[in-house]
Amino acid sequence: MKAKALTLALAALLPTTSVWAASDISALEARINDLESRLAQNEQATKKAEDTASSFEFHGYARSGLLINDNRTGATGTGPYMTAAGDLGAPVGRLGLEDTNYLEANFIHNRQLDNGSSAMFKIMLADGVESSNDWTEDESELNIRQLYAQFNGLPSFSGAFANSTVWAGKRFDRDNFDIHFMDSDIVFLAGTGAGIYDVQLTDDWKANFSIYGRDFGSVESAGTDIENYIATMNNHIGPWQFMLSVMDSKDNQQIVVKDSDDKVDANAKATRRAESGVHAMFAYHNDTFYGMKGSSKTGILLGSGLGAQLKGIGSDGNLNNDAKAVRVFSYGVADLNSTWSVAPAFMAEYSKDRIKDNDEFKWGTFNLRVQQSFTENFAMVYEGSYQYMDLDNSVDSAKGSYYKATIAPTLKLSTVAGFFDRPELRFAVSYVDWSNDLDNFAVSTSTGATTMGNGGETIFALQMETFF
Amino acid sequence: MKAKALTLALAALLPTTSVWAASDISALEARINDLESRLAQNEQATKKAEDTASSFEFHGYARSGLLINDNRTGATGTGPYMTAAGDLGAPVGRLGLEDTNYLEANFIHNRQLDNGSSAMFKIMLADGVESSNDWTEDESELNIRQLYAQFNGLPSFSGAFANSTVWAGKRFDRDNFDIHFMDSDIVFLAGTGAGIYDVQLTDDWKANFSIYGRDFGSVESAGTDIENYIATMNNHIGPWQFMLSVMDSKDNQQIVVKDSDDKVDANAKATRRAESGVHAMFAYHNDTFYGMKGSSKTGILLGSGLGAQLKGIGSDGNLNNDAKAVRVFSYGVADLNSTWSVAPAFMAEYSKDRIKDNDEFKWGTFNLRVQQSFTENFAMVYEGSYQYMDLDNSVDSAKGSYYKATIAPTLKLSTVAGFFDRPELRFAVSYVDWSNDLDNFAVSTSTGATTMGNGGETIFALQMETFF
Amino acid sequence: MKAKALTLALAALLPTTSVWAASDISALEARINDLESRLAQNEQATKKAEDTASSFEFHGYARSGLLINDNRTGATGTGPYMTAAGDLGAPVGRLGLEDTNYLEANFIHNRQLDNGSSAMFKIMLADGVESSNDWTEDESELNIRQLYAQFNGLPSFSGAFANSTVWAGKRFDRDNFDIHFMDSDIVFLAGTGAGIYDVQLTDDWKANFSIYGRDFGSVESAGTDIENYIATMNNHIGPWQFMLSVMDSKDNQQIVVKDSDDKVDANAKATRRAESGVHAMFAYHNDTFYGMKGSSKTGILLGSGLGAQLKGIGSDGNLNNDAKAVRVFSYGVADLNSTWSVAPAFMAEYSKDRIKDNDEFKWGTFNLRVQQSFTENFAMVYEGSYQYMDLDNSVDSAKGSYYKATIAPTLKLSTVAGFFDRPELRFAVSYVDWSNDLDNFAVSTSTGATTMGNGGETIFALQMETFF
Repeated sequence: MKAKALTLALAALLPTTSVWAASDISALEARINDLESRLAQNEQATKKAEDTASSFEFHGYARSGLLINDNRTGATGTGPYMTAAGDLGAPVGRLGLEDTNYLEANFIHNRQLDNGSSAMFKIMLADGVESSNDWTEDESELNIRQLYAQFNGLPSFSGAFANSTVWAGKRFDRDNFDIHFMDSDIVFLAGTGAGIYDVQLTDDWKANFSIYGRDFGSVESAGTDIENYIATMNNHIGPWQFMLSVMDSKDNQQIVVKDSDDKVDANAKATRRAESGVHAMFAYHNDTFYGMKGSSKTGILLGSGLGAQLKGIGSDGNLNNDAKAVRVFSYGVADLNSTWSVAPAFMAEYSKDRIKDNDEFKWGTFNLRVQQSFTENFAMVYEGSYQYMDLDNSVDSAKGSYYKATIAPTLKLSTVAGFFDRPELRFAVSYVDWSNDLDNFAVSTSTGATTMGNGGETIFALQMETFF
Repeated sequence: MKAKALTLALAALLPTTSVWAASDISALEARINDLESRLAQNEQATKKAEDTASSFEFHGYARSGLLINDNRTGATGTGPYMTAAGDLGAPVGRLGLEDTNYLEANFIHNRQLDNGSSAMFKIMLADGVESSNDWTEDESELNIRQLYAQFNGLPSFSGAFANSTVWAGKRFDRDNFDIHFMDSDIVFLAGTGAGIYDVQLTDDWKANFSIYGRDFGSVESAGTDIENYIATMNNHIGPWQFMLSVMDSKDNQQIVVKDSDDKVDANAKATRRAESGVHAMFAYHNDTFYGMKGSSKTGILLGSGLGAQLKGIGSDGNLNNDAKAVRVFSYGVADLNSTWSVAPAFMAEYSKDRIKDNDEFKWGTFNLRVQQSFTENFAMVYEGSYQYMDLDNSVDSAKGSYYKATIAPTLKLSTVAGFFDRPELRFAVSYVDWSNDLDNFAVSTSTGATTMGNGGETIFALQMETFF
Repeated sequence: MKAKALTLALAALLPTTSVWAASDISALEARINDLESRLAQNEQATKKAEDTASSFEFHGYARSGLLINDNRTGATGTGPYMTAAGDLGAPVGRLGLEDTNYLEANFIHNRQLDNGSSAMFKIMLADGVESSNDWTEDESELNIRQLYAQFNGLPSFSGAFANSTVWAGKRFDRDNFDIHFMDSDIVFLAGTGAGIYDVQLTDDWKANFSIYGRDFGSVESAGTDIENYIATMNNHIGPWQFMLSVMDSKDNQQIVVKDSDDKVDANAKATRRAESGVHAMFAYHNDTFYGMKGSSKTGILLGSGLGAQLKGIGSDGNLNNDAKAVRVFSYGVADLNSTWSVAPAFMAEYSKDRIKDNDEFKWGTFNLRVQQSFTENFAMVYEGSYQYMDLDNSVDSAKGSYYKATIAPTLKLSTVAGFFDRPELRFAVSYVDWSNDLDNFAVSTSTGATTMGNGGETIFALQMETFF
């Protein structure tokens, strides 16, 4: 009886646990089962959504704006290549001088295999028009600038090639780099061809190999397309870069040079068009700003024949057979503190027998852009630019200086994200002037070549600029 | 012994609970731990997939179709601006008249910071060709119509600016609005510039400020780009809108007007091209359809000089110095019941000394589109359009009427989603006719200007139209 | 007392379970509650991310490459339509012959309703340029080749229409198919119009109905657009396909034919341009490779008048009134084993009174592409191509053979994914030659028509090709 009473007492005690055990815990387990199966499904769905979303990318660069001069008409002829030396590729600081509505939009398709290999396909749609109007068909320059595919992580690639990327098609070379503030690449290698990146020659030494073709025109009488074939080896050894390009353009001398009205222009033609060329670059990529926190790049470029176009490697067919050129550059970017950022840049070039026998061109540009942040979204941006030119086209010569000063109140999404954070929405006022000696000089010897005109102009700008 | 037996009995009773407690519940806990960590990961992944997916947007408007006249050839010269007054911006109902393959595709890149501020970058790629063929390079009008960036929710903006949007670049103004059924904006402010939206002046009063530039052409002898600068203040006070624009285009009188063959056409030039202008609009945005359920908009536009182009503000450089114009409009949309929807629209304009001294133009259009839904996917759409014109270009004059009647069996994804739900796939039959007096009249006084030709034509159409 | 002791003993035993029960299990339940609500939220977010991601699609086809001939200049005039019969649509194998940078990029917007119905909107942006340069505005052919919308699963559609797709706009017909290796469609029906796919006439019989319009040009004196209207019924009965098209192009005889300089070229005009036409295709879609594992397609096409352009249905307006043509084709693809894949193709055509009275054209092409896989990523691809021509343009005649042999070391993301897996990055060497008799012959009788020139050329290629 005692035992029975005890059992009953226990029965009264136990239900709270045994009921948990028998039904509630089973219920919890069922809910956990359900959660596990739903989560597994949702993980799949998330993976699929991620894959779908990341199979497409949309990136690029754009700027769009309005330029007004102190005469209340549109400013013409301005831009980073506005000086007489601009025809030689000599840039000045771009801030406040650009009137173009310019776009580089990349549409990218990615494909990934489970073994880690992947394919990437890229289109670049580009345009550049000066008109402020919203329907610009008549001056549209829309075109496809890049169109290529590349593979990464191919399991068949091993040893030195294990981490290589192979590509073919039309593209800008991956390792091009630029001084953004002067709108000038240091090297701009581009065209249609094929190549391989990141061949690991030693632990420290990575090399790229490529062949690019470019078109110089056609010789109609012969039914021949004159092309320039550029073979490049590009080496990275720690912070050092050594890039060597050789090029070959058979029958380039037969090309007839035409003026902007598509008429034969014998004056403008090189004395004897080069049919081969060599181009070299040594560069030092420093992860300090000349010793301080920041970054900087310094180097020298050398070229002869078709290689004497030092920036756009192999892109200019109208170079003299014995053209030679050397260019030096150094630039850096540093965020000094939460308020001030600076980006000085220097570039100078000497070239000789470039287009005509006995021509001789010297120029050097110094540019300084400074950002002074006031709030999370507002900064004053300043730019000063100076260029010295001593130009002799073998017929005529001129020398003198160009200078520009710009102040630009600027809105950014985040000033603390640094100098390169974009979009920027800016208003800018610039003053530009130059030596009178330069006013009527042109590098080209063709009749009617455009000259610098007169300096001493104030220019107002409204502009957006973005990387996206 | 009893106790022992009891303990054993209990031992037999308890295991189901104590085993639950000791191992099963721990197992459940482990599974919950696992679920929690997997779910946390998946939430991150979902967030990332969402961010990736929503960083890109693809939107726009397009129509594409085929027009066949009662002579079994392609209909030419048709469209909402087909009448003699069309050159003045006088539209008629568009249904069944459009032969163009027209596209406005927006590619949008969004960037969002955790503090709630965001940047948006937009490209609009646009085209319009009549050809039904599938390779239209020769008549392609592909161009970039918009290219701008804007910021929202900048933390540095406070007070009246707290909810403002700032932008720069080339764009259509955000607050443009249109009578879709006549393919006519009420105002279409567009160009390249910068501005700010939604400055909160009082609790009820929001204002936008902007400067847009537009190009009128160049004076080659002077190396000058003639631009028109438009400063606009656009005010919303409750349902009321007041928009004021002033514009300035120095040296616009020096522009030479050319005909379609790019030859100088002195006849077509305004007597004395305006170099400034004023434009104003008062509008009432009603959230009822003239008192019933629906919506409607009513207003008046006034302009002088360069402001006399009342729709495309500041877009027409060939206006007379003392041009003046006034336009009134009213239109609305109402879903009367599940079957019937109606959209009446009225627009009329009077302008004087518009292009030549002493010219005088009057026109008024009434349009009615009606949708009769039969099933979830099928509707009959009807449109009647009437336009009265009394036109005197200072040399010649004509007056009379245009009318059009259209019936269009239409497929929609969902007729219940309303009048504006798209895509629509439609077949349409239209009859158009007009007064004989209008046949040979042109607003332009230049030799060889296109006229209306003869009326009395039946037109068959196959078309898709979509907003996306 | 015993009972008390026992109870205490039990109390010592029970806590581990009753504590679980009272607090830990509640805690677990709370965590499960939390998990359930978070997972529900995340499922929603995942659904939204999926919907956002899948509302946009980016697909297409592209190739880009460089062609160098054995003279170290750009190869000109090469391509799958390089032979004298190419003007008649006679292709040869494409591998190693293509110099164009060609793009078809589709931007697709999807919209899905919960009832299962959906709308799809598609743009195709296309370009084709030969230049290897990276800025090709002067020869850009960018244009919108497709622009249409279609509906699927409309609830109002039932019976035979229950699974139908309806569409309108500018498009390539869905059921076009091609011999990829010769860059030739079997039928390429395209233009602007409307239609319906997959009307289920019987259990085995599905039919498509469509009307496409195409432009042949304009008669300026009459202000008339000459269009060709093509009505097509396309039937699938099991593996059999029967496609019938009739076409009507009023006033097509009035069209004036112009040469490439836009000058009237009476020589090139058909004797009497056809104003109507009939086109038929019978095809057998076999899911075996002539009995073995793989696939193949075989058929015959017949046409008269405007239907005598057998591939591009209704696309050629310059056909003779009594033109007649017949074409046969057979091709297949088979992966024989893990190493070898083969794709033979045969196409031949006979046409008469095609452009001029009494002209007569016969040609036949046999092409064989073979893939030999070496690793997961590397294959050798071989192609041999032979074409026989017997061509009489009523003024002049020529007959003879063309042959090509190509070997192409090729990189693929996965060779095991088969013949059509892309991208491919390839190097190719081809040798092409033909009978001397063909050198100076052209199908066109217009003065200055392009001829084949001389054969016997080795061509080197670097190329990427992708479907994406």
